[in-house]
Formats: sequence, C-alpha cells, structure tokens
Amino acid sequence: MDNCIFCKIVRGEIPSAQVLDADKVLALLDISPVNKGHVLVVPKEHFETMLDVPDNLLKDMILAAKKVGKGMRKGLKADGFNLSMNNFAAAGQVVFHAHLHVIPRFENDGLKHWPQKHYDEGEMDSYREKIATFL
Amino acid sequence: MDNCIFCKIVRGEIPSAQVLDADKVLALLDISPVNKGHVLVVPKEHFETMLDVPDNLLKDMILAAKKVGKGMRKGLKADGFNLSMNNFAAAGQVVFHAHLHVIPRFENDGLKHWPQKHYDEGEMDSYREKIATFL
Repeated sequence: MDNCIFCKIVRGEIPSAQVLDADKVLALLDISPVNKGHVLVVPKEHFETMLDVPDNLLKDMILAAKKVGKGMRKGLKADGFNLSMNNFAAAGQVVFHAHLHVIPRFENDGLKHWPQKHYDEGEMDSYREKIATFL
Repeated sequence: MDNCIFCKIVRGEIPSAQVLDADKVLALLDISPVNKGHVLVVPKEHFETMLDVPDNLLKDMILAAKKVGKGMRKGLKADGFNLSMNNFAAAGQVVFHAHLHVIPRFENDGLKHWPQKHYDEGEMDSYREKIATFL
C-alpha cells in the first residue's frame, strides 16, 4: 500500500520509535499519545480492519500487546493499561491499517470512560438475537 | 471464584443474554451498554487481567470478539465497532475477571475519544527505551 503510513513505517521509509520488532508485527510509540508511552501494535502486512486480519496474525497482535502491557507496568510503573482497537471510521479509526492501541494508565490520570445506557424491558433480548443470528 | 459475577454467569447461577457459547469463552450483552448491543467476551476460566490470561485463551477471546464484531455489522447494521480491554483498576477495570468489550458504533453516535498529548523534544526516545527494556 503505497500511501499507507504504517506500511511506510514497516518499510523503513518513515522513522518510528519501536519497542518491539517481531516476525509479523511491530510495536511503536504513537506520536500523539493519550498518555505518554502509548503504543501501537501494527501488523507488518496491510489489512484494513480487524475483520480482515487473519486469525493467526490477530493472535500475534494480541500477544505482542500483552508483552507491551507487561513492559509498561515495569518500565513506566503504569498502574494499568487499556487495550483498544477502532474498527471503521465510525469507531474512530483514522489509519486504515488495522492496529491495536496499548495505553498506559495511572491512578487519577483524568481519562474518563464512556457513559453507559440502559435497556428498556425486553429490549436486551432483541439485541441478543440480532447479533447471535450472525455468529 | 465464589463471588465473581462472571464466574457465576459461567456456572449459570446468574442469567445473561449470551450471543456465543464457545468451548472456552462466552460472549454476552453488557447490562449497562455504552451503545445498545455492547458485548463482553469472557473466558470461562477465571483470570484477573490480560497479563494472567494464557496465550491460547487470549487468542480464543480475540477471535470470538472478531466474530462478534462481524455479527454486529450484519445484525445491528453497525458502522463500526471498538474492541477494548481495561486492565487493573487505574484503567477502569471494574470486574476483576479479564474480559474484552466489543462496542457497536454508529455514525455520529456522539462518543468522544480521549484527547491526545504531545512529546517534548527527545522525550519520546526515553519512553521508548523504558518500555523496550522490559520486552
């Protein structure tokens, strides 16, 4: 993918601050971190979203994220970490080369989680059925 | 784990709206969804955080999440979906039985992503090194 920024990083055409260079994935610092030390786990091969990433490569990605999370706990003394992945523009995906975020978290770092909604009576089962039908 | 709500769900002691019951994982609706149709992927065996979950089970979890995401696109006509996992209290983990969130997203659903920070000159490399040392 000629114009994909992550493909350019993988090819070494753009510099990056890498924390891990494994067989099929890279882990590198996000240049605009939610908290400093925020890492992206990027497959070396180009796939658009999680739905396109082959199963074995998804495994490599999440295991790299696990290593990174462990490294953040030790190296940054992070109190915790979030794993996240935005799939499709409506979910906040900006670079259309699938990637996982690993975000170090600290007590009282001020990041707020999304508010929660409530189901009306009986509504939950209709949602359950709509999703389950396609699994 | 006697008092773990997800262990109780796995044992059938608490009802849940399940969309998937696989060999080692359950996927069920979150009762307080960020968007309606929000699913939790829960391993049947109890582990506290991602760092405790065995590698093969993490693979099972993310592949279940991929299936769920695909199902949401079709069944809910979701425009996208977020995958997320909160590890440790500082990261917003509330139930200490490791689980993935799969959140359906819709154009203009109003959910805001976390603001981004900036690195000072030279700072990025010190963060890179602190994490990489432990990988």
